[in-house]
This record gives sequence, C-alpha cells and structure tokens, in this order.
Amino acid sequence: MRDDEDREAASRVSRRGLLTGIAGGVAAGVAAGAGGAAALAATGSSPDEDGSEVVDLARRHPFYDEAHQPGIETEQQRYSVYMTFDLTSPLASDLQVLLARWSGAIAQMMQGLPIGSVEPKGPSAVALDTGEAYQLSPASLTVTLGLGPGVFDERFGLAAKRPKHLADLPAMPSDQLQEATSGGDLSLQACADDPQVAYHAIRDLARIARGVATTRWTVLGFGRASAGKGQATPRNLMGFKDGTRNIKEQADFTRFVWVDDDQPWTRGGSYQVVRKIQMNIETWDADPVGDQQAVFGRTKAVGAPLTGKREFDTPDFAKRAGGSTVIPPTSHVSLAAHEHNGGVKILRRGYNYTDGLNRYGLLDAGLLFIAYQNDPQHFITLQTRLGSSDRLNEYIQHIGSAIFFTPAAPKRGHYLGQDLFT
Amino acid sequence: MRDDEDREAASRVSRRGLLTGIAGGVAAGVAAGAGGAAALAATGSSPDEDGSEVVDLARRHPFYDEAHQPGIETEQQRYSVYMTFDLTSPLASDLQVLLARWSGAIAQMMQGLPIGSVEPKGPSAVALDTGEAYQLSPASLTVTLGLGPGVFDERFGLAAKRPKHLADLPAMPSDQLQEATSGGDLSLQACADDPQVAYHAIRDLARIARGVATTRWTVLGFGRASAGKGQATPRNLMGFKDGTRNIKEQADFTRFVWVDDDQPWTRGGSYQVVRKIQMNIETWDADPVGDQQAVFGRTKAVGAPLTGKREFDTPDFAKRAGGSTVIPPTSHVSLAAHEHNGGVKILRRGYNYTDGLNRYGLLDAGLLFIAYQNDPQHFITLQTRLGSSDRLNEYIQHIGSAIFFTPAAPKRGHYLGQDLFT
Repeated sequence: MRDDEDREAASRVSRRGLLTGIAGGVAAGVAAGAGGAAALAATGSSPDEDGSEVVDLARRHPFYDEAHQPGIETEQQRYSVYMTFDLTSPLASDLQVLLARWSGAIAQMMQGLPIGSVEPKGPSAVALDTGEAYQLSPASLTVTLGLGPGVFDERFGLAAKRPKHLADLPAMPSDQLQEATSGGDLSLQACADDPQVAYHAIRDLARIARGVATTRWTVLGFGRASAGKGQATPRNLMGFKDGTRNIKEQADFTRFVWVDDDQPWTRGGSYQVVRKIQMNIETWDADPVGDQQAVFGRTKAVGAPLTGKREFDTPDFAKRAGGSTVIPPTSHVSLAAHEHNGGVKILRRGYNYTDGLNRYGLLDAGLLFIAYQNDPQHFITLQTRLGSSDRLNEYIQHIGSAIFFTPAAPKRGHYLGQDLFT
Repeated sequence: MRDDEDREAASRVSRRGLLTGIAGGVAAGVAAGAGGAAALAATGSSPDEDGSEVVDLARRHPFYDEAHQPGIETEQQRYSVYMTFDLTSPLASDLQVLLARWSGAIAQMMQGLPIGSVEPKGPSAVALDTGEAYQLSPASLTVTLGLGPGVFDERFGLAAKRPKHLADLPAMPSDQLQEATSGGDLSLQACADDPQVAYHAIRDLARIARGVATTRWTVLGFGRASAGKGQATPRNLMGFKDGTRNIKEQADFTRFVWVDDDQPWTRGGSYQVVRKIQMNIETWDADPVGDQQAVFGRTKAVGAPLTGKREFDTPDFAKRAGGSTVIPPTSHVSLAAHEHNGGVKILRRGYNYTDGLNRYGLLDAGLLFIAYQNDPQHFITLQTRLGSSDRLNEYIQHIGSAIFFTPAAPKRGHYLGQDLFT
C-alpha cells in the first residue's frame, strides 16, 4: 500500500472511530508525548475513548542489569502462570546450577527466543525448547524467581544467608489452607500478554528443574490488566474494580516494596506473599448490589468510595449518615486502608483464575493474590485484620498460601541468587 | 519522556517495523479491500514481518440475521470457554424460554454490553449482569449454542425434530473417556480475544440457566489464534503447528460444514463434535525431534510436510526413500489427510488447555478439539482410523467427548432453535 492511501485510510477509519485506538492510541503513545500517552507506549497497550483497545505483543522487557527483578514493578500483564517447586536434591551445587540455568533460560525467553534448538539434528536429539512459543512475540514476558524458607533450612548450608523476615506465614483468622495449594521451596511467576508464552516459560523451566526440584502447585491467571494511568482498573470475578489504591508512586515502592535494611545480597529484593483465594461465585451473585457495595465500601460500576463519585476519590471514613459511617467499618476498603493500618501499603498483582467446576457443579474460581512488600509483617497485620472482620469472608476462602524472597535482578554474566553461594 | 525523544522513539520503532502492523496492517485492511489485508482487518489482529503483532479488542461480530451461528466460520479468537449442561426441567416450555433468554443475552454480550443493570437501585435488587466484563471491549466475542441428543429424547416431545445424524458417538479405538468430561444436553462455546470476556459470557449464561439446566463440564482454552492468511498457524502444546490443512475455502464450508439435506429447521446448521484430548507432556518432551516429526509427518519449526520445504506444500504421500515412504503411513498427517479419507475434510477449532498438575506432579494439559461437519460420520471415520493406527496415541488420550447440533443463527426478533417449537 502507498503512503497516500495509508493517509486516506487512516482518516476514513478515524471518522468511524475504529482506528482511534490504533492510529490515535498507539501512534500517539509513541509519538505524541508525555504522561498518559508515554505510559501507554511503555506498556504496549492502549485504551481509547470508545472502548477500543490495542495490545502490542512485540513488547519485551529487560532481564539483566536492572535494579530489581522484572514482574514486580513491571506494569501488570494480562496473564500469569504461577508455579512452586520442592527441592529434591540435598546438594547446594545442584541448587546453584539450577538457578544459573533458570536465569539463562529466563533471559532468553523474555527476548522472545527459544532456550535452545527447537529442531536439533540427529536421530536421537531431544529438543531443548518444547516449541509451543516458537516464533511467538515476547508479549511482555517476565519471569520472577522466589526463594522459599526451605532454601535456608539445614539442607544447603545457607542458613546464615536467610533474609531476616523470611519464615512460614503464621496461621491467620479464616485460613482454610490446603496442603496441595500451599508452600514450596522455590516459586516462578511468569506474566505475559499471551498465556501460551507464559505457559511455555513455566513448562520449560519446570523441565530444566527435573532431578533437582519437583513441581508442587500451579495456577493459571487472567485478567484485563491495567495498562497505564489512562486505563480503567481491572475487575475481579466479583465484578468490582480491584487495585484502585494499589502502589503506583516510586516513593511508595522505595518505602514499602524494596528491601534495603538486611544483608547486602538481599538489597533490591522483596518478599512475595501468594494466596489462592476461592470465591463462592453463585452466593455472591445472589447478593443484592447494595449489600455487595457495603461489603467492598465502593460502588460497583464506577468503583467510587461510597463517600465519593469518582474511582480515585479519597474515601472519607469519618463521614456519617443516619447514625453510622457511610463507609462501613467492616468493609474491605476500610479494613485494608493504609489510614487504618499505620500507613502501610502493599503492592498487589492479582489475577483471576478458574479451575472449572467443583464436584457440585458450581463455578470453581477466584483470585490468585500476589503481594510484594519489604516486610511480610505488613501482609500479616493486614490479613489478620481482614480475616477477623472483613465482610468479604462470607464469600471467599483462602485455600492456598506461600511466601518467598525475590532477590534483585542479576548483572549480565551472573545469575539469580548468585550471591548466596559466595 | 519529552516530545523530541518520543518522536525519535517513534521513528526508531517504525524502522524496526513495530508500527507497520498498526498503520500498515489494520489501516490497510480496512481501506484497501481485498485479500489478505481484508482478512487481517476482519479478525482484529495483524501480524508483522518482525513478529510484531497487534490485537484490537474493539472488534465485534454480528449475531442476528447471519446465515450461520457465529463461532464456527468466524476466524478463531485467542481464547475459549466451553461448557455443557444437563436439562433438569422436563418442560419443553422451560427449554424454550431458556433458549430465548440465552439468545437475547448472547446478542447483548457480543456487542460488549452487559445483559442488564450492573448496579440496580433498591436495597434488595440483585444485579442481572455479574459485572466482571463491564466496560471491557467486545473482544470479538462469539457464543455458539449446541443442542445435544438429549433435547430430542422422550422428555420434550421434540423427537420428530431430531437432526437425522444426531446421536451419541459410538465407542472408538483408544477411547479413554471420563463421564465427568463427556456428554451434555446443551453446549455453549464462547470464544473471544479476552478470556475475561469469554468467562463472563459463560458464567452469566449458566446463571440464566439455573432451575432449568445444571452445569456438566467446562474447559478454558487458549492459543495464539490464526489471524488471517498472512499469519502463522497456531501451535499446540506439542510444539507443532496445528491446522495447516484446515478448511479455509467457502466451497469446502458448503460441502463439508453446513447442513442442507435435512428438515428445514436444520438448514445452515452444523454438527459440533468436541473431544478433550489429554497429552502426556513430559513423555512427549523426552522424544527425539526426529521421531516427533515422524509421528506428525511434518517438520517442527516450519511445519512443512516431510516431503516439502514450506508449511503449505502439499504432502507427497507416494514419495519414497530407503525402501519406505518419506511420510510414514502411520503419521498423523497421512492418516488424517483427505486424500486418504475419501476426500473428507472437517473444520477444526482447537484450543490448548491446562488443568494445572495431576496427582503425580506432571503437567495436566492438552487440546480441546472442536470440529464442525455436516455429518458426524466424517469425524467417526477419521477418528476410528486415527485411534487404531496414529502414532500420536502413545502421547495422547481422548478423555472427554460430546456431540451437539448447532442450529443456524436467528433472525432479529427471534431466538436460537425457535423453529423447534413451531
């Protein structure tokens, strides 16, 4: 097609509004300027006034030489595959080799490349890469490694290196944890804008681990991801926006997410807390919306606090009407508010999941809640409070739980967790 | 980022070809008209020379007044949620009302609209729409209704209307079917470029069915979808391209997909055969690529027949080397070839699925195989042959199975299957 035809096409299409999201969104994001538009370009996704939205799967993220591992501060991608592992080898050298091999493979896959030949020659040559993501775009893939408490137990001689807050989470109110979806010595969180890319990453990393670590549990998550400051907050399967008050400012990342007061090797890392939260979908769906809104403390369509009109209005927890506060003190927004938790904020990366139907034919679905903080006590305090009083507890169960330390990103030529072994 | 930096970035990006897929691909598709470019626009997805790829989630499909139901001929979207139901009410009028309500809801959701108020007023008002897709783009959603053999049994007085080939599939070689993932009186296949949109559709349709039909089994599928003639065929979880020889020409749809030799109400419909095919992932991954290629009869990276160089080269089943045919007669491509099955072709819409890990910690994943044909005998003949001889059987099990009749699309003001009741 010729340039003049292109221009004409763009103008015609623009009138119909179809391409506003494309020519107007992505091109604007790349070309036009600051703020929201730049954020769009940075995330490879662009919303538009008429709801048109474009995802660019060519986007890729760097792995080496960053201050932190990817997949924490990274703008949330649309899909995730999360898996934990048990170390079966008692040898520190096996763990060391595994972390080195994983690091090399992660760096390769985040560039959209296979981790070795897809089609090696020779009659008995087994492929290093399983191939299902071959020639797919990188789709913003990030893989984030977590080291569980077990890495620092008596097995590997690494007890002296244990991050000072890394310990199994205590029992908390309302816990209904299942062994089959809890714990693990290592975790991998793969996020991408294409689930086939995320699944391939976890599958091939699990394959590399064979003989050293076995798979423990896994969750495939999805959700319309937030794509920058201009875009609506994603909704959970209860139909409410989830993440309106999430950490966005660099100062909050420094204060609440990144570790900097522990052994040198932990600097720039973070604690990853994971909870598999099952929802009683059908019960929730039968609840009047007025009650659902009192449970969350927000309106359903707009997501505004019950004391406000717009999503990002600051909740007014003191405002009263008819003898009680407008926002119920047992609502989720009130209990989780940093105003009521000593100023503490945690970084959340939640994904919706579904496990199909349960044995009663009910929808088996919920939220894979992943939080990052520089002290797990922040989560423990918050969840102890929520588990005791949150009206949401009528509609959810925490069925899975685990904690990991996510070390900083490696320099080029090094690997994740390398400082553990020096 | 400043404007001048942005402009530089845009030009750099353009040189890399990032935006070719946007301005050059989608705009060209809308404006230019014919052939490949039009196909791109029609699917809302555009590939690019360097692998850049853009998905436009604003795309929507029509429901009413089409020759056929959407989701059959429709270019395959990236995700699917498939669910079957058992009718629990013995009243034909209940079935009738369900089909009418489903039709209205499907039409609404395919436009990206909620099926009723998300936030109804009044203290005890329950929302009609569960809300998790509220304000999301339509994302090319299609929902396809299937009527199982049970609709035409003694319960509803509809035996005389039974499509002449609609009957439970016979047992076939290598079947390892499980009751929990087989059968159903009704099926819904939701496909979209956003899984949250597809999941919302099935969830809200299941909710409408309560009291009349109960959920039976469900699968959430994903896969990089084919997006037109210019794009690579998607890969299954064995790492091979899947669908190279799929039906693409209108003449083949007319000849093999659409029913036209039965009662008037069945015209423009099709038979939907569904198989849940589990793969032995780890066993497959350990197989040398040379052997994998002999199993499929194609190369892994390119997807060419073993007698050719490019993906769409016609396989030469007669070509011999070293005393045997180059393409083994027990390879998948040979056994499934229309050249070896009386010219018969079936339309396939496969999606990869994962159910996480099995009880042994192995990957529980495979292919949700959905095929459309105007006579289920086409599938039966093919699968009987494949189930007996296909070397793939060492690596897969058919664990789920069902058959449905998908009637034609309704006219506006009418509903799916309405002619059953007149």
